[in-house]
Amino acid sequence: MDAVLLSASVPANKGERVLELGCGVGTAILCLGTRVEGVDLTGVERDAAFAALARRNGGARLEVVETDLTDMPLHLRQRQFDHVLANPPYYDRGASVASDDPAREAAHGAETSLEKWVRIAAKRLAPKGMAHFIHRVESLPDIIRALPHEMGSIEVLPLTARATRAPERIILRARKNGRGAFRLHPPLILHQGDSHQQDGDSYVPAISAVLRDGAALQF
Amino acid sequence: MDAVLLSASVPANKGERVLELGCGVGTAILCLGTRVEGVDLTGVERDAAFAALARRNGGARLEVVETDLTDMPLHLRQRQFDHVLANPPYYDRGASVASDDPAREAAHGAETSLEKWVRIAAKRLAPKGMAHFIHRVESLPDIIRALPHEMGSIEVLPLTARATRAPERIILRARKNGRGAFRLHPPLILHQGDSHQQDGDSYVPAISAVLRDGAALQF
Repeated sequence: MDAVLLSASVPANKGERVLELGCGVGTAILCLGTRVEGVDLTGVERDAAFAALARRNGGARLEVVETDLTDMPLHLRQRQFDHVLANPPYYDRGASVASDDPAREAAHGAETSLEKWVRIAAKRLAPKGMAHFIHRVESLPDIIRALPHEMGSIEVLPLTARATRAPERIILRARKNGRGAFRLHPPLILHQGDSHQQDGDSYVPAISAVLRDGAALQF
Repeated sequence: MDAVLLSASVPANKGERVLELGCGVGTAILCLGTRVEGVDLTGVERDAAFAALARRNGGARLEVVETDLTDMPLHLRQRQFDHVLANPPYYDRGASVASDDPAREAAHGAETSLEKWVRIAAKRLAPKGMAHFIHRVESLPDIIRALPHEMGSIEVLPLTARATRAPERIILRARKNGRGAFRLHPPLILHQGDSHQQDGDSYVPAISAVLRDGAALQF
């Protein structure tokens, strides 16, 4: 769900170069490749099993580089991208218990700090390139503090399960060399109604369009 | 309006010490003193005419110290407060034209950077004391970046004119030595309906209660 919403929020155009940090099995970046024709897709993933699945899922459409973010090979560090997206791990070591499964642990354990994810994303952007992150609301101050000075035109879209709730996730967008003022969008409500309905799905039309029809999430 | 909303958001209790930075004629801090009995009120204001009016408005209830924020007298720098509130100037020099009126210019010109307002507020807080700021949404990243490390439990309440609009203002609360996770509240909608009505006022009941009846703004 988060990967799909993240992917839908990236306004990529034909011919642009897109990098996903921590692409897992390729969900977000392959959604993007399906929505936008003719984009150049690269994913970085340090877990060998996930990277192999991403390669199998993406075929010739997706270049998968198996590497730790903080130790990317020179050929990647020499390239710039029009878009970088990432769904960094949500749980920090201080507040959660380690998992026995190393891949799950890596996905949840945040051995690489959120600050590093943000800084590495910014580094790989071409001038005027855009970064998109999806994360817990709680991390918004950390992401803002981690954004290097050259990242501007920051926009935040809060994601809220239901109209009566506080937002639980944010999508944050920022542009390298952007000079626009910070914008906080009204929360995007994902579900209709005030409580969970047993029958059928309850997504609002804009979210159904993203999940079912591969629509963009415009903000 | 902003001063009243700011004041209403401060959860002060009897016996607590409250400081307003840049109190102007005393609107916010005197609203607070009216809503909560037995609080100890101090306002700092550098403009002599505003400070004189604040003294006249507050009488014995309000101590007014005429001083620049960045040059507060020792007796003030030696004191700590349970609450500090501020409505720092909204316009930065780069994006606006100077006014001919020095007091208005000082109020709008932001000669003292937002970063300084935030840091000075934090400095004057007792352990576990709370700071409240109201400002333009665009300044949220600057406020977050300016908050010293010891300020935690950050909460943001976006204020939106109408349900269909993006928020224009935020109230930001933070606690010295707070350890709570960052919280982004759902926007508080000020007016009912999608557009301005000519007749009567259109405030939602919670805002009417603040403006008319001196109610607290709870979040």
